[in-house]
Order: sequence, then structure tokens, then C-alpha cells
Amino acid sequence: MKLPFQFYLEDFGVAVAAITGVLAARGKRVDLFGVIVLALVTALGGGTIRDCTIGDFPVFWVRNPSYVFIAAGAAVVTFYLERAREFPRSVLLVADAFALALFTIVGQQKALDFHVGSAISVAMGVITGVAGGVLRDLLLGEIPLVFRPEIHLYATAAFAGAVANVLLARWSPTVRTNMMVGIAAILAMRLAGIRWHLSLPVYDPRQADETQPRGPAPPQA
Amino acid sequence: MKLPFQFYLEDFGVAVAAITGVLAARGKRVDLFGVIVLALVTALGGGTIRDCTIGDFPVFWVRNPSYVFIAAGAAVVTFYLERAREFPRSVLLVADAFALALFTIVGQQKALDFHVGSAISVAMGVITGVAGGVLRDLLLGEIPLVFRPEIHLYATAAFAGAVANVLLARWSPTVRTNMMVGIAAILAMRLAGIRWHLSLPVYDPRQADETQPRGPAPPQA
Amino acid sequence: MKLPFQFYLEDFGVAVAAITGVLAARGKRVDLFGVIVLALVTALGGGTIRDCTIGDFPVFWVRNPSYVFIAAGAAVVTFYLERAREFPRSVLLVADAFALALFTIVGQQKALDFHVGSAISVAMGVITGVAGGVLRDLLLGEIPLVFRPEIHLYATAAFAGAVANVLLARWSPTVRTNMMVGIAAILAMRLAGIRWHLSLPVYDPRQADETQPRGPAPPQA
Repeated sequence: MKLPFQFYLEDFGVAVAAITGVLAARGKRVDLFGVIVLALVTALGGGTIRDCTIGDFPVFWVRNPSYVFIAAGAAVVTFYLERAREFPRSVLLVADAFALALFTIVGQQKALDFHVGSAISVAMGVITGVAGGVLRDLLLGEIPLVFRPEIHLYATAAFAGAVANVLLARWSPTVRTNMMVGIAAILAMRLAGIRWHLSLPVYDPRQADETQPRGPAPPQA
Repeated sequence: MKLPFQFYLEDFGVAVAAITGVLAARGKRVDLFGVIVLALVTALGGGTIRDCTIGDFPVFWVRNPSYVFIAAGAAVVTFYLERAREFPRSVLLVADAFALALFTIVGQQKALDFHVGSAISVAMGVITGVAGGVLRDLLLGEIPLVFRPEIHLYATAAFAGAVANVLLARWSPTVRTNMMVGIAAILAMRLAGIRWHLSLPVYDPRQADETQPRGPAPPQA
Repeated sequence: MKLPFQFYLEDFGVAVAAITGVLAARGKRVDLFGVIVLALVTALGGGTIRDCTIGDFPVFWVRNPSYVFIAAGAAVVTFYLERAREFPRSVLLVADAFALALFTIVGQQKALDFHVGSAISVAMGVITGVAGGVLRDLLLGEIPLVFRPEIHLYATAAFAGAVANVLLARWSPTVRTNMMVGIAAILAMRLAGIRWHLSLPVYDPRQADETQPRGPAPPQA
């Protein structure tokens, strides 16, 4: 089941994810090849893990190489543009929230087309949405940003939207509408997370406090 | 070929592996989502690599989502329990030795059911037993614990038990008995390693010495 | 399509890659098991990712376990030899350049036999040639060497040779000749990169400068 304009939207999402892959290399002394790989891994990594675990071969970007060209092209352009001037970060944050929402729901729907159950479809949606960024951070030697409270409801938003998508399917037969509600839910929750600095509870909060100024203990989360 | 009570034992092993995934996040300022992913990767990562390399799709946890629920549930419970009080580490160490033994031999047997040779079945057993922990450590930005002498015969025990399992198969046709001998061998060797601080020789021992008090050169290993 | 002596050359390439996997562990306090895993991952990792993305199962080393034996054997020998005396690094650098060239073109040709397009065949060649080293560096907690300018045209050489191989195929029907030209091109470009310290432009050059003595800004790249 395809969304209207899905192909254009996906190309846009791939380019946005590739740009975030490049920008994560700031301060790391990585060369042009490294930057292109980071962009490809960020944009295509989640879908690759999804395809390899549900068993759809060859994986999507082998079957449709245009994703590779778009991600690599976005990486090269960003590589040279960033030398001249900085990307507007707030625009990128909103574009990335949209890419997260789109990748999650489209990835979940693909898994549903392979007849996985509801729970696994949610997992596959979240994997498609966030695993590329996890691999990017691994390649840069950092604990994945999506595991940290500073990111403000990133994976959680993807999870909630994917759950909404499968729950709606019990009452509404219109897959396309359910998908659009799921995408809207992720986008809204992610932007709300950024706006109001929402976050999940943190493991080992004592450790976390040590980096904060002393004062009364903060409320959980 | 299934062991008696194999399903209950596997569920127990998955929960134990998930708990070790959570505990590895101590001091890392990871949020609840990160903790759940670490638990899932530790518990399901080795079997996923096994299934993807022998070519069994969809991978086991997509076909049987109960593993995902057990690992995620164990992660959430551990996340909140650890805020109240610490897990008894010695109990966990023994439970983890049992999970290692079970995962290794059951993973090896699955590979044998796919008609791989003896050598590859040993490799698949070791991968099933230890690769989840390797991925967990990668996600936390650390050199895998299983590569270090401090772990005291972890992968080595898995390797020896898997070799025992395939060697026994040359004389004894009772797969189930061979598996139980393999499991017992791993458990015994792992617990002996912990008890007497056994370890493999270390690469580059001069480097290692620099962190030790000066004195006569230690005997190899 | 096979090159003359391809099997012997591949075995040689696997052993060389395994040795570089071991040597990367210098100063890391890794035990014998860790060293063997590093060797296996370096030698077999790229081809495993290629097989999993084009969808050839079981992956090559499950079907042909001799690669596992060669890599593990080379690792054990290197582990003990390095305690006695150091490997001659310049010999290894040339041997590794040859392994890069061979893996890239043979990996690309395998992808072409699976009917992927030209662009994806180039990507698969580069993955086969360099991804094992990326995984090795990940396991050691370092930003992949192949992403850094210090490596001097490693992935770039693989990319150029793979492009040469598919471009030649438009005019010349002799696959074997095209492959040998591709291998020669990679080898020549890699050795030239080492000899004259060539490198790709670096992202974020200001950051890089901070670790250099102050002076006039260096020309780009």
C-alpha cells in the first residue's frame, strides 16, 4: 500500500537522513569517503536491517539504486556547502522529524505486507526509523544519540505512531488513512518532545546528576 | 531436535541475557528506550546473526515474537528494580553461564539441522552464545568484554562444549544426550574459569603490564 | 567468472586480511579469542555483508569453511609470531593493497553474476574490499581507518578500479581481462596513494588544524 507522492517523499526523507549523517561527522576528521558512507548508512541502514530480518532479498537499495544516488549526492553537496556556511539547524530538525515519521510508518507497512504480526510490525517500524542513526553513531564511536534523554522522544514517538497505525487498522480498513494518522502522530509527538524538552526516564540517574549543578534532586525523568 | 523443557529454558535464558544487557548500561546515562534496545540486542543478537548467515528467514524472533516480549519485559522490570536495590551479581553470573551454555548448544543444533558441517556448527554455536554480548558492548562504545582476559573462559567454554557436542555425535546417535553433555561441559568450564581466574593468553602483554604494578614479568597467560 | 589461480589468490588475500585484523589489536589487551574474531571479521566481514544484501544464502564462508580455517590459522600464527618479532610493515602494506584489489573486483564480479546493475556492483565491490576493516575498527572502538585521510586512497582506489571494471565491460567482452585491469588499477592507485601521501578532502578542516602547529591555512585537502 502506497501513500500519495510516496516516492517523492521517500527521496526527500533519504536526503534528509543523509544530511544528518554528514553533520554527525563534525569535528571527527573524516574524509569525503567516510562522509558518504556515514550518509548511506544513516539513510539506508534501518531499512537494510528490516529487509534482512523479515527476509526480503535483495534488500531495497540493491533493487532500487536511486536511493544510493540520492543519499550519496546529498552527502557530497552537504560536504562542500558546510565549508561555506552552516545548515540552518532548526529547519533540519523539523525535516528530520518528518523523515522519522515517514520511514517508521512506511517501514512498518512493508513488514505488514510480509504478514508479520502487529508487535513485530511495530518493531520493524521503529527499526526502519531509528536504526540508521544508531549505526551512524556506532561508526563515529559514540553511544547512539537515540538512547539518550537529550534526544527528547525520538524512538518513543516512532513507537507510539506505529502502535497507533496497527490499532487503527482494527477499526478502519483504509490503510492509507491509518498510515497518515501514524505519521502525523509521530511528527506531533517528536516536535512536542523538542519544544517542551520531554524525555524518558534515565537509567542510573545518580550518575547523570553528577554532571549537573548541585541542588534539590530533580523529579524522575 | 529439542531438549526437554527447551522452551521454558530458552525463555529463561533470554530473560537472563536481557538483564545483563540492562546492567551493562550502568553509568552510561541511557534512557528507557536505550535500555530496552540493549536488552533485545544482547538476548537476540547472536541468533539473528546465525539465522542471517545460514539463511533462515524470517529470523527466529520475527517468527516467534514471544522472545521480544520476554526480553523487553525483563528489561523494564530490571530498569525499575535496579533503582530500588542491586541485583545479586553472583546469582546473575551463574544464570548467565547457564544461558551461555544453552544458547551455544541449541544454536549449534539449529545450524546442524540446516546441514552445515561440524566446523561451521561450532562457529554458529559460539556466535549464538556470545555475539549478542559483543553487539551490546559495541552499542556502549566498549571493546567487547568477551575479547578480554578478565571474562575468564567465556567464548572458550562455548567453543569447547560445541566441539564436544559434534565429537560425541560420531559415536553416540542420541542427539539429546550429546547436547546435554555439551551444555554441562560449557557450564563446568565457565564456572571453573570464574572460580580459578583462568584466562587465555593476551595479545601484546607488555602493554597490559603497564597497568600493573612493576615487578617480575608474569608467566604467560 | 573466475580468474586464473583465483582460489589460491583468495586464500592468500584472506590470510593477509586476517593478519591486519590481528595487528590492529596492538595495545588493546585483547585475548586469543578476541584476536581470532578480529581476524575472522576483517577477512570475512565484507563478503558477508555483500552476500546478505544481494541475498545469497548461506553466506560464502558457511558454504566453504576453508576461509574460516585459513583466517583463524593466520590469526593464531600471527598472535604467537608477533611476541617473538615484529612483522615487516612495508611487506604487509603491499600485500594488503593486493588483497584490497582482489577482494574488490572478485566481490564486484560475484554481484554482477547476481544481475545487479553497474552502480550496485561498484558498491558491492567496495563493500567486499573495505567493510571487513570497518567492522574490525568498530570492534576495537575506533573510527574506521578507511574513513580517515591518513589511509591515503584506500576506498577511493577500490571505487576507481571497480568503475574501470564495469566501464571496460561496455567495450570488451573478456570478463577476465577487465577484472585484471581493475585489479591492476586498484593496486597502482593504492600504492601511489601510499608513496605520495595522496588523500581525499577532509570534512571540517578547521577542527583538524587545531591539532597542527599554527601557521598559514593549508590548501584544501
